[in-house]
Amino acid sequence: MKAAIYRGAKQITVEERDKPVIQAPTDAVIRVVRACVCGSDLWFYRGIEERPAGSQVGHEGIGVVEEVGDGVKNFRPGDFVIVPFGLSDGTCANCRAGRQTNCLHGTWYGTGQSEYSYVPLADGSLYKIPEGNYTDDQLKSLLTLSDVMGTGYHAAKMAQVKPGQTVAVVGDGAVGLCAVISAKLLGAKRIVLMSRHEDRQALGREFGATDIVAERGPEGEAKVRALTEEGVGVDAVMECVGNDAAMQTAFNIARPGAIVGTVGVPHDIHVPFDKIFFATVGVHGGPAPTRAYVPELLDAVLSGKINPGRVFTFETDLDHIAEAYDKMDKREAIKALIRVSEP
Amino acid sequence: MKAAIYRGAKQITVEERDKPVIQAPTDAVIRVVRACVCGSDLWFYRGIEERPAGSQVGHEGIGVVEEVGDGVKNFRPGDFVIVPFGLSDGTCANCRAGRQTNCLHGTWYGTGQSEYSYVPLADGSLYKIPEGNYTDDQLKSLLTLSDVMGTGYHAAKMAQVKPGQTVAVVGDGAVGLCAVISAKLLGAKRIVLMSRHEDRQALGREFGATDIVAERGPEGEAKVRALTEEGVGVDAVMECVGNDAAMQTAFNIARPGAIVGTVGVPHDIHVPFDKIFFATVGVHGGPAPTRAYVPELLDAVLSGKINPGRVFTFETDLDHIAEAYDKMDKREAIKALIRVSEP
Repeated sequence: MKAAIYRGAKQITVEERDKPVIQAPTDAVIRVVRACVCGSDLWFYRGIEERPAGSQVGHEGIGVVEEVGDGVKNFRPGDFVIVPFGLSDGTCANCRAGRQTNCLHGTWYGTGQSEYSYVPLADGSLYKIPEGNYTDDQLKSLLTLSDVMGTGYHAAKMAQVKPGQTVAVVGDGAVGLCAVISAKLLGAKRIVLMSRHEDRQALGREFGATDIVAERGPEGEAKVRALTEEGVGVDAVMECVGNDAAMQTAFNIARPGAIVGTVGVPHDIHVPFDKIFFATVGVHGGPAPTRAYVPELLDAVLSGKINPGRVFTFETDLDHIAEAYDKMDKREAIKALIRVSEP
Repeated sequence: MKAAIYRGAKQITVEERDKPVIQAPTDAVIRVVRACVCGSDLWFYRGIEERPAGSQVGHEGIGVVEEVGDGVKNFRPGDFVIVPFGLSDGTCANCRAGRQTNCLHGTWYGTGQSEYSYVPLADGSLYKIPEGNYTDDQLKSLLTLSDVMGTGYHAAKMAQVKPGQTVAVVGDGAVGLCAVISAKLLGAKRIVLMSRHEDRQALGREFGATDIVAERGPEGEAKVRALTEEGVGVDAVMECVGNDAAMQTAFNIARPGAIVGTVGVPHDIHVPFDKIFFATVGVHGGPAPTRAYVPELLDAVLSGKINPGRVFTFETDLDHIAEAYDKMDKREAIKALIRVSEP
């Protein structure tokens, strides 16, 4: 089968690999229908994060179950499923608390950009999509439940966004845009998106952003605060980047008592503890347990209430996946979709 | 009048000072009834925190209004009041949100250990105690609403303690013990107090602690985790010390998704951001807006539901206040009360 392979900084190839096989009774093998490239894939793509050359890539996807191990009870070949990026047993104390990315026996999905992928812990991880004839746009939205939509939602949940609030999103990548959708879903009244790219600003507005702040640093922070009552700051902040500048901005625009919900994988973030304490701004986040959110978000997608698939602004097939990475690296695509097969 | 004065590390004197006068229309002057020494006073007492020699001290108290400025509407001479350590206008966006220690025009109460004290922003800061003949024990509990009881309660509120939970308190000072009271008040089922002092353990149990862990560091952390389901950690942590060891322990005993509510004034705390993110443990806190909690806690005190005044294990008068500092410094007293006058 064909699989995308990391060969070094800015080098993604498509190579022939053995089709995955069941190794443990709880495994499944999935025929991939749609995969995609994640903003977090850019960390290794750019050579910032180390990754072994020759390794398979991709941690998002929807697909059809091809084969299951003897121990898999809830799925059978032919089921159309969402594969969350965090794979979990679904039974440990953390999974039962909705913290599947902290599963005591969990692992990460890592073979998504290929024709077939290997999914351990199938029962606790996969989520069956109801049978139906889905449009291409619906498939895109379903695909986002694997990661970005659930991650944006986690940012909003961790920031404890409540109805009527004024909130801000730092980061206009696919996750940040999905955080806008999430804040609206949770009832925020005023949603400020910090974004300096016109295409992302437009999509942000479509998703529910009421205000756009294009400036960064102190200038941008002052503009956000100026939108709030007496300039005290916003009621909740969703930090969807993962670098120090974004996190400092998140703290500087949050009102006392607010929480910064953070979901961007952190890279060299240094928030002095004194700042957290004396600003009286909390911080809460981590790798999103997207599996926990699939049921409610799937309903919102299927009812047409949300349309997160709009974040895919570039599409190609597996053979041309290198182009998808390149487009995302150059910020020419918000998020790139890979058509692998049809359901 | 007599006032306690800081003269240098481990030197508290009682000196004659002018009785405070009204300087702004929103000021009040209070005849102090009871004052006390705070665990946070020990930072300057021990010479760790700088403070000008010759400065007045004391940021907690209950007393009788002696005089008010022309602009004070809610209080008049003779009113028996609680003075919170954070003074606030009560009208700004932060005060209205219950964040009085972030008042846009606020200041700190700093003349509490004296016969008369100066209270700016009287209307927004003071809270009138209903008329009545209070016992000595009740006066002690009312005094704690000025700081420690409200601060312990803030730790529990920031940690989002919920009914039925298993929670832990790091720190067995007066604030930590008040956090135990607070966790019980908020419905926690199992309350683990980390304490290695027998007197504090006993009081902790009286206040509602169901388990005591005397060990510190990794050994103590393992013992706390062993008390939780599958060892994942407690549902909420109240960090009531303010040093690095306590904060690291707080993170190490919290389950994924938990929040560390922190109220100890931070001194050299270094929690790497990566730890916050990948442990998926949040942190939230800061100087407690005790004024916000006075109404509900006053009810709990007056109905006898809580008895936080039990934290005072040493009493003296203003003339002997140096002994009160010394007893607290040597941990011979949990908290020291200063009788100044009678209501």
